[in-house]
Amino acid sequence: MKPNFSLRLRIFNLNCWGIPYLSKHRGDRVKRLGDFLNMESFDLALLEEVWSEQDFQYLRQKLLPTYPAAHYFRSGVIGSGLCVFSKHPIQEFTQHVYTLNGYPYMIHHGDWFCGKAVGLLVLHLSGLVLNAYVTHLHAEYNRQKDIYLAHRVAQAWELAQFIHHTSKKADVVLLCGDLNLHPKDLGCRLLKEWTGLHDAYLETQDFKGSEEGCTMVPENCYVNQRELQPFPFGIRIDYVLYKAVSGFYISCKTLRTTTGRDPHSGTPLSDHEALMATLCVRHSPPQHTPSPTHGGPAERSRLISVLKEAWAEMDLGMAQARWWATFTGYVIGLGLLLLALLCALAAGGGVREVAIMLWTPSVGLLLGAGAIYLFHMQEAKGLSRARAELQHMLGRAREAHDLDPESQAALFLGQQEGDRSEEQ
Amino acid sequence: MKPNFSLRLRIFNLNCWGIPYLSKHRGDRVKRLGDFLNMESFDLALLEEVWSEQDFQYLRQKLLPTYPAAHYFRSGVIGSGLCVFSKHPIQEFTQHVYTLNGYPYMIHHGDWFCGKAVGLLVLHLSGLVLNAYVTHLHAEYNRQKDIYLAHRVAQAWELAQFIHHTSKKADVVLLCGDLNLHPKDLGCRLLKEWTGLHDAYLETQDFKGSEEGCTMVPENCYVNQRELQPFPFGIRIDYVLYKAVSGFYISCKTLRTTTGRDPHSGTPLSDHEALMATLCVRHSPPQHTPSPTHGGPAERSRLISVLKEAWAEMDLGMAQARWWATFTGYVIGLGLLLLALLCALAAGGGVREVAIMLWTPSVGLLLGAGAIYLFHMQEAKGLSRARAELQHMLGRAREAHDLDPESQAALFLGQQEGDRSEEQ
Repeated sequence: MKPNFSLRLRIFNLNCWGIPYLSKHRGDRVKRLGDFLNMESFDLALLEEVWSEQDFQYLRQKLLPTYPAAHYFRSGVIGSGLCVFSKHPIQEFTQHVYTLNGYPYMIHHGDWFCGKAVGLLVLHLSGLVLNAYVTHLHAEYNRQKDIYLAHRVAQAWELAQFIHHTSKKADVVLLCGDLNLHPKDLGCRLLKEWTGLHDAYLETQDFKGSEEGCTMVPENCYVNQRELQPFPFGIRIDYVLYKAVSGFYISCKTLRTTTGRDPHSGTPLSDHEALMATLCVRHSPPQHTPSPTHGGPAERSRLISVLKEAWAEMDLGMAQARWWATFTGYVIGLGLLLLALLCALAAGGGVREVAIMLWTPSVGLLLGAGAIYLFHMQEAKGLSRARAELQHMLGRAREAHDLDPESQAALFLGQQEGDRSEEQ
Repeated sequence: MKPNFSLRLRIFNLNCWGIPYLSKHRGDRVKRLGDFLNMESFDLALLEEVWSEQDFQYLRQKLLPTYPAAHYFRSGVIGSGLCVFSKHPIQEFTQHVYTLNGYPYMIHHGDWFCGKAVGLLVLHLSGLVLNAYVTHLHAEYNRQKDIYLAHRVAQAWELAQFIHHTSKKADVVLLCGDLNLHPKDLGCRLLKEWTGLHDAYLETQDFKGSEEGCTMVPENCYVNQRELQPFPFGIRIDYVLYKAVSGFYISCKTLRTTTGRDPHSGTPLSDHEALMATLCVRHSPPQHTPSPTHGGPAERSRLISVLKEAWAEMDLGMAQARWWATFTGYVIGLGLLLLALLCALAAGGGVREVAIMLWTPSVGLLLGAGAIYLFHMQEAKGLSRARAELQHMLGRAREAHDLDPESQAALFLGQQEGDRSEEQ
């Protein structure tokens, strides 16, 4: 690689809202998306919510001349909805399905059936190794009373860990997707602090698009306006995040979003806005790359605080999962008692017919409670796993913090300031 | 690191057969295992089938002075059964739960409820990065008619991919565990060819232990003798596998196994035999590390052949999963029809009571068939994912093969030889 090496990468990301039979104008939108991608000729187009494999196959055929490489990430019952189109050959790909992803009995929300995942692509571009990740985390249906919060934070942690462990030899890391997280949400901070990824919207000098970079905006006719009421400009939940290792420097030259309308005709491509980023990768003098636990004292303090917060969230989730497991455990006990009573009644005559009629519903109750019990046991195990990993990393970050004289000085200064403000 | 750097690693692996209430003499065996590990003071002890977290906590307390670091990998409903004790600090750990792991309705086999997984530990030893993996794949209940073959091959592929993608910056890679695969089984060959891991039993110059390195032997009183009848010496399904990257050289100085008896008293520690390896890591002049698709022509041919075989197995598994999904789809249709008929009969009088009595079982049938349908849809997606990854890597391996003049020469010579033997 030459020392004046420079690489320009044009990236496209969109949550396509492609639910068969349910999403409005799906066929037309997919067609126009294909036309747009062909016209713009990005290096990499990363899509979420392409729930129908037929839609993917249609796009694959249509985009073949411009994007010779493509992949659809299959998982769960329905699929992850993730796919990717690339102008450059894909060297390797794999995926990681999140351990926790909502509840199977919340059928109307449907996330559990999708098998939400993170997909990884390894590309070699002019001798540079690019790890590109695409993901879609669990949806947020009620921000005030979010029953999926613990699952989404656990997913953010699994995503961060997957990136951390699989990108150790990558020169450039890129993560695109619908995180279903606002920029200051715990999951988003955890992901950024642990991986060191930068947010294209916050970093770029040249942004054009929706107000505050929002990716779900009230101007979009497909958006549920009632849900966006508390957010006059909309919400920012889709991201382009990136980082480069020592020896390379990456910056976001431009970032564009659609603004609730199709870039060319009048109707939008999806209920989400598309993100279009131009990234520039250059050589830079090798520097010491800070590992998550070896950043500066300020970074470490932030990391410790966010790890603590996530740990507490996992703990809360575990308590809830265990409560449900205990509750269904009692229901199972009661169901067994009822069944024994019905058997006795059926054998003894008298209300025999009623007893026989009630027998099957109580077996049903027993089996249903059993299934929910098993599910929440599994949920508790999944959360406990995330909590153990968080606790370990928290311990290590604290150790590094305690050993570092700079941190001690920062702590001392912080204490002095605290004392002063208390005195005042 | 000094050029004459050398590191000796003593590794212990055992499938502990620790099923609460079912495994014989569990408490006594766990106690003796703790005593043995304390006495031998290995660098790393990797255990499988520690199903009870109480057993892990007991061992943790007992081993604390000798093995200050420990971790239990939680997953599934019951747990992965995997845990590790280390003399050295564990820098990082994470885990990957296999997408496919048997069938929930095969309750008597129970694998599905365990959430079989691979655990990863990152250790820093004298400046060297060691990635240690511990795993346990789906059991084989009937070698002649193995309904879990596709799942086990998919697990072997996921394991190989997880190691491949997470060990790119490791100096030394170590994999221990119960693979439930004989040395020449497809899954074992796939794992070795794709990761480049070496088998301690085949590599060591100094082996002492059971005949042919078997890890389930007829001498062991806990082993089901009938199952081992076709294998007079027993079977080898537990492994210590390793590799080092360029710049390092790793060899297995000694390998010991138990031989169906406790190393000190008369009864064995488990129904499996323990593996004890002494590995030696040294500096070596940096060489070109062959990537899976860039080995020599012979390696590449072997890789292509095993990838093809695994692809075919996934294809077969997918056909079967889809057959089940279609079958249960028909059952659902029939159930709906029956339900409609029963509703009509109940409304019309006549056999009203019978209709009401049959209503609940048919709803049960419908729900049961629905659950099995969803499960097999998910299974087909999981197998299809593995097949797509295998197909991609097969394509890349073939490309590399076609581009390489050496491979062409090998192919030409092979063809000539083939022609000659045909002529004879």
